[in-house]
Amino acid sequence: MDLSAEFKRWKAQCLSKADLSRKGSVDEDVLEIVQLLNGQEQFFTTSSCAGRIILLDGSINGSEVQKKNCCWLLVTHKACVKDDVIVALKKANGDAILKFEPLVLHVQCRQLQDAQTLHSVAIDSGFRNSGITVGKRGKTMLAVRSTHSLEVPLSHQGKLMVTEEYINFLVKIANQKMEENKKRIERFYNCLQHALEKETVSTTSHPKEKVNSSYSRKKKRNPEKARGKRVTKENDKELENNDHDDPGISVTIFPEDY
Amino acid sequence: MDLSAEFKRWKAQCLSKADLSRKGSVDEDVLEIVQLLNGQEQFFTTSSCAGRIILLDGSINGSEVQKKNCCWLLVTHKACVKDDVIVALKKANGDAILKFEPLVLHVQCRQLQDAQTLHSVAIDSGFRNSGITVGKRGKTMLAVRSTHSLEVPLSHQGKLMVTEEYINFLVKIANQKMEENKKRIERFYNCLQHALEKETVSTTSHPKEKVNSSYSRKKKRNPEKARGKRVTKENDKELENNDHDDPGISVTIFPEDY
Repeated sequence: MDLSAEFKRWKAQCLSKADLSRKGSVDEDVLEIVQLLNGQEQFFTTSSCAGRIILLDGSINGSEVQKKNCCWLLVTHKACVKDDVIVALKKANGDAILKFEPLVLHVQCRQLQDAQTLHSVAIDSGFRNSGITVGKRGKTMLAVRSTHSLEVPLSHQGKLMVTEEYINFLVKIANQKMEENKKRIERFYNCLQHALEKETVSTTSHPKEKVNSSYSRKKKRNPEKARGKRVTKENDKELENNDHDDPGISVTIFPEDY
Repeated sequence: MDLSAEFKRWKAQCLSKADLSRKGSVDEDVLEIVQLLNGQEQFFTTSSCAGRIILLDGSINGSEVQKKNCCWLLVTHKACVKDDVIVALKKANGDAILKFEPLVLHVQCRQLQDAQTLHSVAIDSGFRNSGITVGKRGKTMLAVRSTHSLEVPLSHQGKLMVTEEYINFLVKIANQKMEENKKRIERFYNCLQHALEKETVSTTSHPKEKVNSSYSRKKKRNPEKARGKRVTKENDKELENNDHDDPGISVTIFPEDY
């Protein structure tokens, strides 16, 4: 079976299945994007989380085994209320951690070029840790991820390590990040619509224009790159050199026009 | 010029340039990997950071503009000393944040298959947020990233919001994460060596075995996937569904043997 027919079969198989996530449904804030993607023949989503603030009770020494033993004291996909955190913290008997987790979206793509287009949309919308995975049978996925995070240990062996004033301060920051995440989701939806329109035009008129268009926008924003000048992580998008938010690491950029 | 010749030219161009990073050299802990990769004709590294603990002074409302205004109060690629953080915090007049940032490595790959092999090595070593980027002229990059993080606001407008005891607790956690990061870097080096040996064997005997081998290991580890059963984020590696460390989001996995 050719890849395109196989893709159709995967998509039908995936979309026909019930949502077995804990929540049992797609998060409201990402629903428009999920519907827009699943309405395109070249895409379908395999997992999504719009973003959330969670309070975990578990170990924090970074080992996977212990992470799996942790339990959720609080989860919200909306702005978080300080008093809810205070109440939930009373149930902590391990090492409680407050985390903000931004949008995560996994999209299976018909072919690499579709993943490139979607990747470009994700980067342009601020989801700078997005990346493509290509499986051994050509299964092509895009993972949409942000650099945006917050991970704060609050208690140790059930003992609260911070003040209520600090928790209040922290909840405000988490809610700000949730707001910023929402803006990025909106940007993603708009950029996606724009890219899909461009695609329709380009595939009917200039088949080659499709991928170029998405990158030429970057060239305009990054004139330094076109001159092959070294730039810091902040400036480089195409090479995904945005994992840190400061110019602390060695980066070399080549001229765009090799 | 064909892609392979172009790749050679990019590599020569990149490796001939001086390191213009703040530090001016490759971090010790990642040097072996960088040298191993740059010694292979199909790879070269364009940026790297072995991992670090940093104390930033700036705004934390997540907007890029404000992030660019932040300054570094402390940076270390080794275990962090509590008293150094206490001293550095005295210089904070904005919103100070303590962050642990794990390994970040960007590797340009000759072709997609090379990126797939390296991606598999990264995932198997615990760098589960790794992903491929394909530029418009076929420039193929792998970004090696971990889910492993820590980001803790400590002061607001110059006012310290936590106790010295908490800072001590936090520094221990940051140092534990640094240790775990080191282990993953060692795993990455060993997996990479193993994959490169396998590749040499497979390209001389069975050219097709190369990519399959890297994924067939996963199938053995994830028997559920082979039966097409839905699995949680923790279990799914090939689809990069590991952005969160808990089964909180909707994921569908297909049988490996389509």
